[in-house]
Amino acid sequence: MLIFIGAGLSINHLTIEAIEWLKKADKIIIDSYTNIIPDFSIDKLFKIIGTRIDVIIANRSMLEGVSIKKIVEEAQKLNLAILVPGDPFIATTHDAIRVEAIKHGVQVKTINGLSIYSLAPSRTGLQAYRFGKTVTLVYPEAFKPYSTLETIYDNLSRNLHTLLLLDLKLEENKAMTINEAVDILMDLDEDRKLNNIIAVGLARIGCKDERIQADRLSRLKKYGFPPPPHSLVIVAKPHPIELDSLKYLCNLPDEIYRELLNRRKYP
Amino acid sequence: MLIFIGAGLSINHLTIEAIEWLKKADKIIIDSYTNIIPDFSIDKLFKIIGTRIDVIIANRSMLEGVSIKKIVEEAQKLNLAILVPGDPFIATTHDAIRVEAIKHGVQVKTINGLSIYSLAPSRTGLQAYRFGKTVTLVYPEAFKPYSTLETIYDNLSRNLHTLLLLDLKLEENKAMTINEAVDILMDLDEDRKLNNIIAVGLARIGCKDERIQADRLSRLKKYGFPPPPHSLVIVAKPHPIELDSLKYLCNLPDEIYRELLNRRKYP
Repeated sequence: MLIFIGAGLSINHLTIEAIEWLKKADKIIIDSYTNIIPDFSIDKLFKIIGTRIDVIIANRSMLEGVSIKKIVEEAQKLNLAILVPGDPFIATTHDAIRVEAIKHGVQVKTINGLSIYSLAPSRTGLQAYRFGKTVTLVYPEAFKPYSTLETIYDNLSRNLHTLLLLDLKLEENKAMTINEAVDILMDLDEDRKLNNIIAVGLARIGCKDERIQADRLSRLKKYGFPPPPHSLVIVAKPHPIELDSLKYLCNLPDEIYRELLNRRKYP
Repeated sequence: MLIFIGAGLSINHLTIEAIEWLKKADKIIIDSYTNIIPDFSIDKLFKIIGTRIDVIIANRSMLEGVSIKKIVEEAQKLNLAILVPGDPFIATTHDAIRVEAIKHGVQVKTINGLSIYSLAPSRTGLQAYRFGKTVTLVYPEAFKPYSTLETIYDNLSRNLHTLLLLDLKLEENKAMTINEAVDILMDLDEDRKLNNIIAVGLARIGCKDERIQADRLSRLKKYGFPPPPHSLVIVAKPHPIELDSLKYLCNLPDEIYRELLNRRKYP
């Protein structure tokens, strides 16, 4: 049996169901490359599940490509749990293993976990109903990520917020920060459409040192965010209750709050 | 202190963090009107938190309008927890209390819970990145919900899936079923653009009797879904791995799978 378990954004996000299934596992593979859980440790995990289980810390090559066959074969013999930061299937990384396992007659169980995908609207007070397509901002390497900018523009033109997930290349020790994301976006945004847009930086949500900060996109760089994981929300014209949430939950500076309160046009 | 706690879609979705905060509460108000948690009972809750706490089952009037002031006043004196199905702030119902409490100097804590908003992509295998704006389908009463249809059309025109949350009027004992939703949509869709669209019905996700079923929208009515909560995903043209997920995770009938595999045009 193959059990995909979402760990959430903090070790305290483990659900009753997740703990039960971890206890039933013969072996736990921990995905260490799709995201970071800042307060996670194997000792804490053993303490929570009350027993020591065979644990493997997996890098990308162990859960992709040719390794999928190996995982599926192992799951035919024992209860194999794959513990994934956030929810196991919000990022697309593990979709292929899940389908391959089912095709090969392996029983597959999905145990969901808290994801930034739902925590971003919930914690900012920006309404889930007002989010458009979500997109990952990648480092500009072979090409510049203009398509991400197009998604933001498209959402804004429909008066919808955008959740931007920031690139993680944990095997190269790279996790994009809000500061880097702002630089990349400002560089892409040649028409300066985003200059006065409100954005919210989200750092280490769910952990003790989490920080949520709203300001104009270009000004987000002046804040001292704790280390990644980071993400960013590009805000469409806020409704009155959302504007209050930006102030009271996301620390939007008061002068910008008052400006938005009095002005019909946005940005 | 006011503590908003997401209970998830099943009592087994409670997180370590949620249980810790429930234990610290002097009083727990249970929101019984924004959604249903099929396997929830107060006895089970007491068993999980290991102690009996003053509990109130709240209807809509107890958490909205003039009652907000009373809640805020109470939270100035004691640790008041509000336990909400799913995540406390994915539906917009509790946004006003949260902001009011902060304005009145009450310390507010948000403890997130699993939400259909992230479980829908995760459990169907439809990519979170390919969902457009989410919308609630309401019962056609004073007016027909054409704007919901417009959202679906708009998402489809951009090749994006739509998560449809179905209307709940629990105080009138009404929870929209997938069957009712299909009828309402087919009635609205005068141009018959949705006739051949693939949709996925989601019933009681997270519970033992959950059911996930994909088929053409018009054919979803022939399945025997368990009782609500229900929701519906309108599927844009699936990518290859999504198409496999529709078959292996969502039970898409094989003849439709093969048809979609061989045909470039969708629907």
